[in-house]
Amino acid sequence: MSETPYHFAVILAGCGNRDGSEIHESVSTLLAIDRAGAKYSCFAPDIFQYVVLNHITGEPMAEKRNVLIESARIARGNIRNLKDFIANEFDALVMPGGFGGAALSLCTFGVDGDKMSVNADVELAVLEMVRQKKPVGALCIAPVILAKLIPDVKITFGQDEDVNSKARQMGAETVNTKHGEIVVDYEHRVVTTPCYMLNAKIGQIYEGAEKLVAGMLSLIVSA
Amino acid sequence: MSETPYHFAVILAGCGNRDGSEIHESVSTLLAIDRAGAKYSCFAPDIFQYVVLNHITGEPMAEKRNVLIESARIARGNIRNLKDFIANEFDALVMPGGFGGAALSLCTFGVDGDKMSVNADVELAVLEMVRQKKPVGALCIAPVILAKLIPDVKITFGQDEDVNSKARQMGAETVNTKHGEIVVDYEHRVVTTPCYMLNAKIGQIYEGAEKLVAGMLSLIVSA
Repeated sequence: MSETPYHFAVILAGCGNRDGSEIHESVSTLLAIDRAGAKYSCFAPDIFQYVVLNHITGEPMAEKRNVLIESARIARGNIRNLKDFIANEFDALVMPGGFGGAALSLCTFGVDGDKMSVNADVELAVLEMVRQKKPVGALCIAPVILAKLIPDVKITFGQDEDVNSKARQMGAETVNTKHGEIVVDYEHRVVTTPCYMLNAKIGQIYEGAEKLVAGMLSLIVSA
Repeated sequence: MSETPYHFAVILAGCGNRDGSEIHESVSTLLAIDRAGAKYSCFAPDIFQYVVLNHITGEPMAEKRNVLIESARIARGNIRNLKDFIANEFDALVMPGGFGGAALSLCTFGVDGDKMSVNADVELAVLEMVRQKKPVGALCIAPVILAKLIPDVKITFGQDEDVNSKARQMGAETVNTKHGEIVVDYEHRVVTTPCYMLNAKIGQIYEGAEKLVAGMLSLIVSA
């Protein structure tokens, strides 16, 4: 490990796959970064969740929850408002998945499909990293955000033809993958992995996160 | 991996260290079980959390949350009421930490110290596993539950002398440990590890969980 390890920014979007960030993917991302000898800082937008869902029944719950406050559960309180993200401070940016977080709070893919819009702070963060030629990673459903923001980006959603088709409508190139595989877009410096887009066990989630982080580190050092 | 892998029951207690289960410890436990070729089922008591806390500020939030429903976020919905736990179906039982969950919802250690009581369903589950001589594991602060339920149990809380002293008042033997170390009580078939009882990085949490699961598997196969 170097004295000044590479620094990843991780964008969280709540806590729980149905209405926030997928917890296994988020923790696997943080763990993979730490085990690779790099460090991380967590960010989330200070907005209300699109919805609050009971994770047993899938039914809506009659309450409101804040994305930044709920994300802090995964980050053990060490988290900042995404508005305060400064690309110059980081070497790489990652977005874990979770339909409720990545596809309903960070963008509107879950309701608008290929007509989706992206949260303004997420858009600023991603586009500034891309402009600085720093690697951006996304797990599970989160690559839809990159499909919208980065013309012709090459990404994966596992084997999901419905999502593939919508991503292609937005201009992306989609590549089918299996458990633990990554797709590296060397031109745009983007790395993606399917995780729970496939029916997976938690060990396969970690395997995907570990390879994604390794792929991003490889892009950083080859810059 | 055998065709019928060993089956761990994992008791969760909400979602987030301040008022529920510590998320890194919970996910690390599930990941370590899966990577060891074993399988897991998650349980939680169907009760209200002792408190709901903002994980950024630490301040109470004016709402109620149910331990089983919030735990389902970590378990991706695959979770059962702890009342339905049947020891005969499992080879081992683990309790991740998190002060808000393990020390406020599963027992009252957080308010009552060594005068604490244990949730009745947790007590039944632990004591039946002990009676069947099946390994019980606990991370972080969760070993206080074993201190209360198992006379003379040998456990660890890292280096925390305040918790050590209260656990000894309840009849336990405490052993100081460092990151990633486990304490195995061969007589009572109990394995514990300090995790966030020490100031730790997430990789050290996984290391502790991995060694705990390996230690429990070693007890199972040597039965």
